[in-house]
Amino acid sequence: MTEPGTLYGLGVGPGDPELITLKALRLLRACPVVAYPAPEDGASLARKIAAPHLPGGQTEIVIRMPLDAGRFPIDAVYDDAARAVAGHLAAGRDVAALCEGDPFFYGSFMYLFGRLAADHRVEVVPGVSSLLACPAALGAPLAARDDTLIVLPATLAEATLERRLDGIDAAAIIKVGRHLEKVRRVLDRLGLGKSARYIEHATMAEQRIAPLAEAGHRAPYFSMILVHSRGDAWR
Amino acid sequence: MTEPGTLYGLGVGPGDPELITLKALRLLRACPVVAYPAPEDGASLARKIAAPHLPGGQTEIVIRMPLDAGRFPIDAVYDDAARAVAGHLAAGRDVAALCEGDPFFYGSFMYLFGRLAADHRVEVVPGVSSLLACPAALGAPLAARDDTLIVLPATLAEATLERRLDGIDAAAIIKVGRHLEKVRRVLDRLGLGKSARYIEHATMAEQRIAPLAEAGHRAPYFSMILVHSRGDAWR
Repeated sequence: MTEPGTLYGLGVGPGDPELITLKALRLLRACPVVAYPAPEDGASLARKIAAPHLPGGQTEIVIRMPLDAGRFPIDAVYDDAARAVAGHLAAGRDVAALCEGDPFFYGSFMYLFGRLAADHRVEVVPGVSSLLACPAALGAPLAARDDTLIVLPATLAEATLERRLDGIDAAAIIKVGRHLEKVRRVLDRLGLGKSARYIEHATMAEQRIAPLAEAGHRAPYFSMILVHSRGDAWR
Repeated sequence: MTEPGTLYGLGVGPGDPELITLKALRLLRACPVVAYPAPEDGASLARKIAAPHLPGGQTEIVIRMPLDAGRFPIDAVYDDAARAVAGHLAAGRDVAALCEGDPFFYGSFMYLFGRLAADHRVEVVPGVSSLLACPAALGAPLAARDDTLIVLPATLAEATLERRLDGIDAAAIIKVGRHLEKVRRVLDRLGLGKSARYIEHATMAEQRIAPLAEAGHRAPYFSMILVHSRGDAWR
């Protein structure tokens, strides 16, 4: 009987191909099959990050999902992908699922994991998340000492955002996209707008940093707003 | 005139030397001077993580600080360290400051950064934080979809912890140490104790995972408790 393969959830980092770990790189090169999410049309960011490291000759499973189609992925797409991955595992082939940032930090790997972890060997290799890449790119610490840090998807309702942000030490608002104006209103009301930092496509060629007031009206999906009650006083 | 050097804050990852990034590895090897925190007696964890990668022949600055001496580091120790680093930078030598996990995520790099960033070239290379390594080691996603995630140092007062944890989707409680019993009381009162996951020394040889109820009475400093309101339902 064939020894079943392992599904590796590989964090490939936030964008710069040099921010992949040695472990993810080793497994990425060793797996005969790679799977990755992609928009309905166009190129996969996870594959783009991994591209300089791919040895060639691997079987590729492209999981096509409209990024803005709805709040949560369509079940059928992940059912199909999980079936394809399971087929390779059953045949004894290891599969590397490429994940932007970290697989378990708001990643779409969750949808494969939820379908396959009960019946297959799954190992996750953590990666550098945008949560850490954005502060590094901005030159602004994320949290320190006894700080409370909160991570909030900008998709939440305005009142929820305001309630969660009130009285915090540090916050990262992710998935900004078309919710930029809403987030700006909330931060301005809380007196946090001036010190908030906006960044999109951190560590990529298209990286852009701006004061929140100048960030425009709509952000890309891969953007973040960082807030700290201490502002710039880090000594 | 000598071109001044750059201070690199390098995230070396959570413990497994293979979880360093290609970028941190390249800079680690290229810098003539490395600086790292260490306990008052004994070995530095950051140096231990980096050790397999060190080329040898580098000047080393050891920043000795009692881990449990007080809540915040003693200013004088970091004043001295910053002076030593500044001396090398002025002489044109790049300095790599080694940081467990990520430099800007509750890291002691903050204390060098606060003293040196205004007058020197400083670049931060993000790393894999324990916040991401612990979920990977546990095989338990950290946060997904519209989850609110909160990171709380266990050093906070019991009432503050309880207030912050009430109604959350996902939480990571860091710096558990001697605060384990307090955190357990709070989580039990909130009905979150049963699904909470405890882990210490993630990705290291000494890694230990236990249900929170069996975690004992005192944890090491490098330990974490992860909570998710969804428990194990990740599909």
